[in-house]
Amino acid sequence: MHSTSGAEPLVLHPERFFDADPAIRRVAVALYEETHALPIISPHGHVDPWLLANNEPFPEPTALLLTPDHYIFRMLYSQGVSMESLGIPTRDGTPVETDARRIWQRFAEHYHLFRGTPTGVWFDHELHELFGVRLKLGASTATAIYDQIAERLMSAEFRPRALFDRFNIEVLATTDAAGDTLDAHRQIRASGWAGQVVPTFRPDAVFRIATPVWRDAITALEQVTGRSIGSYAAFIDALVQQRAFFRSLGATATDHAVVAPYTERLDTARAEALFAAALQGRATAADQQAFEAHMLMEMARMSCHDGLVMQLHPGSFRDHHTHIVDRFGQDKGADIPVATEYTRNLHALLNAYGAHPNFTLVLFTLDETTYARELAPIAGHYPAVRLGPPWWFHDSLEGMRRFREQVTETAGLWNTTGFIDDTRAFCSIPARHDLARRMDANYLGGLVARHQIDMSDARQMARALAYDLGKRAYRFTTGS
Amino acid sequence: MHSTSGAEPLVLHPERFFDADPAIRRVAVALYEETHALPIISPHGHVDPWLLANNEPFPEPTALLLTPDHYIFRMLYSQGVSMESLGIPTRDGTPVETDARRIWQRFAEHYHLFRGTPTGVWFDHELHELFGVRLKLGASTATAIYDQIAERLMSAEFRPRALFDRFNIEVLATTDAAGDTLDAHRQIRASGWAGQVVPTFRPDAVFRIATPVWRDAITALEQVTGRSIGSYAAFIDALVQQRAFFRSLGATATDHAVVAPYTERLDTARAEALFAAALQGRATAADQQAFEAHMLMEMARMSCHDGLVMQLHPGSFRDHHTHIVDRFGQDKGADIPVATEYTRNLHALLNAYGAHPNFTLVLFTLDETTYARELAPIAGHYPAVRLGPPWWFHDSLEGMRRFREQVTETAGLWNTTGFIDDTRAFCSIPARHDLARRMDANYLGGLVARHQIDMSDARQMARALAYDLGKRAYRFTTGS
Amino acid sequence: MHSTSGAEPLVLHPERFFDADPAIRRVAVALYEETHALPIISPHGHVDPWLLANNEPFPEPTALLLTPDHYIFRMLYSQGVSMESLGIPTRDGTPVETDARRIWQRFAEHYHLFRGTPTGVWFDHELHELFGVRLKLGASTATAIYDQIAERLMSAEFRPRALFDRFNIEVLATTDAAGDTLDAHRQIRASGWAGQVVPTFRPDAVFRIATPVWRDAITALEQVTGRSIGSYAAFIDALVQQRAFFRSLGATATDHAVVAPYTERLDTARAEALFAAALQGRATAADQQAFEAHMLMEMARMSCHDGLVMQLHPGSFRDHHTHIVDRFGQDKGADIPVATEYTRNLHALLNAYGAHPNFTLVLFTLDETTYARELAPIAGHYPAVRLGPPWWFHDSLEGMRRFREQVTETAGLWNTTGFIDDTRAFCSIPARHDLARRMDANYLGGLVARHQIDMSDARQMARALAYDLGKRAYRFTTGS
Repeated sequence: MHSTSGAEPLVLHPERFFDADPAIRRVAVALYEETHALPIISPHGHVDPWLLANNEPFPEPTALLLTPDHYIFRMLYSQGVSMESLGIPTRDGTPVETDARRIWQRFAEHYHLFRGTPTGVWFDHELHELFGVRLKLGASTATAIYDQIAERLMSAEFRPRALFDRFNIEVLATTDAAGDTLDAHRQIRASGWAGQVVPTFRPDAVFRIATPVWRDAITALEQVTGRSIGSYAAFIDALVQQRAFFRSLGATATDHAVVAPYTERLDTARAEALFAAALQGRATAADQQAFEAHMLMEMARMSCHDGLVMQLHPGSFRDHHTHIVDRFGQDKGADIPVATEYTRNLHALLNAYGAHPNFTLVLFTLDETTYARELAPIAGHYPAVRLGPPWWFHDSLEGMRRFREQVTETAGLWNTTGFIDDTRAFCSIPARHDLARRMDANYLGGLVARHQIDMSDARQMARALAYDLGKRAYRFTTGS
Repeated sequence: MHSTSGAEPLVLHPERFFDADPAIRRVAVALYEETHALPIISPHGHVDPWLLANNEPFPEPTALLLTPDHYIFRMLYSQGVSMESLGIPTRDGTPVETDARRIWQRFAEHYHLFRGTPTGVWFDHELHELFGVRLKLGASTATAIYDQIAERLMSAEFRPRALFDRFNIEVLATTDAAGDTLDAHRQIRASGWAGQVVPTFRPDAVFRIATPVWRDAITALEQVTGRSIGSYAAFIDALVQQRAFFRSLGATATDHAVVAPYTERLDTARAEALFAAALQGRATAADQQAFEAHMLMEMARMSCHDGLVMQLHPGSFRDHHTHIVDRFGQDKGADIPVATEYTRNLHALLNAYGAHPNFTLVLFTLDETTYARELAPIAGHYPAVRLGPPWWFHDSLEGMRRFREQVTETAGLWNTTGFIDDTRAFCSIPARHDLARRMDANYLGGLVARHQIDMSDARQMARALAYDLGKRAYRFTTGS
Repeated sequence: MHSTSGAEPLVLHPERFFDADPAIRRVAVALYEETHALPIISPHGHVDPWLLANNEPFPEPTALLLTPDHYIFRMLYSQGVSMESLGIPTRDGTPVETDARRIWQRFAEHYHLFRGTPTGVWFDHELHELFGVRLKLGASTATAIYDQIAERLMSAEFRPRALFDRFNIEVLATTDAAGDTLDAHRQIRASGWAGQVVPTFRPDAVFRIATPVWRDAITALEQVTGRSIGSYAAFIDALVQQRAFFRSLGATATDHAVVAPYTERLDTARAEALFAAALQGRATAADQQAFEAHMLMEMARMSCHDGLVMQLHPGSFRDHHTHIVDRFGQDKGADIPVATEYTRNLHALLNAYGAHPNFTLVLFTLDETTYARELAPIAGHYPAVRLGPPWWFHDSLEGMRRFREQVTETAGLWNTTGFIDDTRAFCSIPARHDLARRMDANYLGGLVARHQIDMSDARQMARALAYDLGKRAYRFTTGS
């Protein structure tokens, strides 16, 4: 047995993350006690639906927890640890480290880098609550902790569906390309398992008419819809049909990633011309920008008809580091945010659809300067708009605090959606919701301690943030 | 009598809004005790001067407190309550809800939306302190509270001038178009009433040469000055004359709303050409932008001569929601801020006039990112510049905290103006000043508790923020 | 003797600047006790090396503490005190106030302006800790305090080198033009004194090909390198040579000030053409922008070779007030920040060099909105990047708090450099480091009190911030 002598204990303090002030903490604890056991609503994220369709055992710890999680390896990479030495697979198959234990050890030796970060908070939560680890992760404890996790992963209780139930997930939405067959979702439905897992319609690829992968995305959409897409009109028809297909499998939402949230309607002739240019492989970057702006308008229009909630995630300069995307592919920790403008960019869309009674638009941002300046005033006026919670880099203790402090005074609580985990790391879902519920309880605790609201108000608000608002905004009707 | 059984009490905790920490709260309480009864200086706002000229009784509660206040109805609108059902009058006279009690009930049923907002804080203050309400507003208490307020409004003590005195307002500035006759102000003066109510010169409309209402604004200016304005030179003369007229009725300031605070002097020939184009109805948006930039320079130049304090309120994209302005008009909760630049935009104006000994320029912003980055360094250098307090959406508990924390370290306290309520809701004035005095006492309490300043310093600073700075910045000489 | 009766005592509370909450303060005190006596690493600043080369006594208090410090006189100027009355020398020799005691008195009468500012904190620290002052500075105590300081300055213990040792400075880096002879540094080395004072290579002037002083800067570079710089190729050779010369005298870093951190490589022919245009005096502002963007690429390339740490200080609109620079020169408190973009501007440089194992790029900003949005994600990915501490206006209590709260969760602690004083006021160095150590201890104290990290973690982190990180990032090997 590997020696862990001298290792420090891993302790999760029951009142962790609450304000040190006793008056605030007392209220926060009381509110958290009422919300921490509520079911989890997860209306947006990136869990692979095949995980729950196949319900196979998870692999060993490194393949489960480290190599797929760019929140983890980007931090080690930033301190000079090579991606290859962490076992990140290369696109051309160049060999990388394959010894899972060696990678785990390397991670453990750098685990101090995560002190003060939400990734560290989530990981400690997973170690302690899911895997029963009681020693701080570090060089001397790495092997023992690896063994402990590996052993647990072999048991039936750690199969994905068993964890889904144990996590108390009421509904989990995945993210799926417009041309997806949704086979995994159909398999889940056919299996008779009661877990509610629903797809989300994400058509980004078919809107990016100047990219090399656009043609393949259109082909996939043609195949899944059984239509030939030789014109803009046919394209629109295919989208309508596929949105209905997604809805038939439980989808309640669409999702859209753009750099700038620019919206502008084209006349049909212009849209047809751009689409024709794309089919001929000669669409330009400017063409794509106009087409994406127009398609956001179309997505809003369709949502008014079919009721799918429209989500907008702008502001990421994807694949900023060319070497990384070339060698390792996308989503490898090299996406860097840019300043984002909403007031002018969303003017067309909000004027056309922002007051439609069947439309919900959930806005996210990576640019916190827009919380109080643009997003809260927009959500505090337009009936269709709700603000999604702090996203990505801002899904953090301080990020959540800043969001509430900068949004609530203008938009109130009811124009926000409650927490969304947005994760591809299935095992981190409870940790993320637990942290959010703690931070929201703490925010409300401050309002109570400063006599801005009373406990009766705060109780309703805590429950709204933890459960009601997310369920309502994303139009989930019943638990399962 | 309407049943209010089971209703919760409305309590205003005497130490509300102060930090929960006992050391900070203790100091904050001590400082607030010294400032809370100081007279109110209100150097900028939108109270209708006819209110105080006529001194008629206020109407019933809904017409007084709800329908004119876009802070209130925008929040209900954002949650799907139609403007029509709230009795907001339409421009074309299409009928809307007219039952004041039904509107009040609808508001009360949605009053939870204001939890955690400054609007909720102000409204509770008004209910409790002005109208003696002791139950939380909600569905079950709406009628009883309506009746209670309605009854009070009938008494002589609730006439506008009586409230002006009761509110302990030392001076109240209104906002008046360049072409205003100031009849209300003359009537107040002629009435012999001692209350100090002064106009503010707001010439925005006569600078917007590309808008359809410009011609009417010029005509009004012609009529009030008795001049024909057929040239730029005549326009300048009319402005000088009208500024003197405003000063004769007590005005100490001008006010200017622009989207971007761009300043640039044109040569006279160019200014004349633009003005001629406007008279011929063919000024473009670009012409207007250049003309407005030039007229800000002219306003600063005139202020150096006549001593009127110049206020600049940039950064609002007015009437963002076209449907709302078309149907209900302006100032209906659909103004959305945009990012604002000061360093380059004000370069011309500050270089020309920023060190003039007779010039004061008060800067406001809806873009908090400029507090520490641009505004505090500008105010911490240019002798003419003072920073106005957090404006509009940022006139809030957290907004005031952010302002002090981001401005004070570079600009100090003496380069700011103290609190400005900027309200059209006359009855909310005491609530707004009370909140600001609490937040300022609390900010200073933090500095004392962390031993950055001592109590002797803090006492002077608290009084400066509550009273002295505003009076000095706006050049009010005596109390009445 | 001048009367100071009635003056208030100047007290520096031992637990000053720590959070009022007892749980946080207790931890902060414990952490600060372990870091406050660590040696000072000062890897970037503007102390004149001749000060330590000559080791002459300091002049009287006003010439030492007031007239050279734009943090001080800009605040008085902003409140209407003329630069002339504060003895700021004019460029054309126009007489200004020369009575040092009168200037000191004027400053003391306005000292309240610094309440709540870091300048006030530093100045009180210097008065109390360095000069033994025990009365608050003000009108009535000005003379007595002046006398007390003046007397101390005459003693041998107040010579620069004695203070350097007393301040416990392990290493001090100055900032030196590319064409500097480094005579002061050579004299220090030759003197046998053990104090480690090193130069920093700052070539801004030779990159600004459209400015009138460029030709002189090139001439200086020609003289110090003994080369004729008639071409771009020769220019590059001269820079390589001079960087080696700086390194031979202990330099470990370069420093670069630009408005926007725009980077883009030119092909050699284009670079040669721009340089030729500059030599002929016909380089345009656009030429300079392209050349500077290219030279940042070149500086990074050279750093990969010679290991000099590259520092980037963007975002200041220098000499915003033309009257001030014309009459008094540069660095007179009239530099105003502008919004700054990093994600797109640094794309070229980071893609080319951001993962080079011998490259370190330290990024600074005057635009706090980039902390969480751009800088932390960049530092949390690119191995070469470290974030410098809050700079200039943000080197303050609240500024340091915002930096840690907005950077740590994404970038962690180890992608930052620890504190940098960046001062030209030699006597303020201990005050600045003391304040930073207090604020960092307090930040960590909050994490501990909220059970996010434990004391064992916090101890290592506090030491890293106070000493280890700065020493490692700037590649200082041993203490002396």
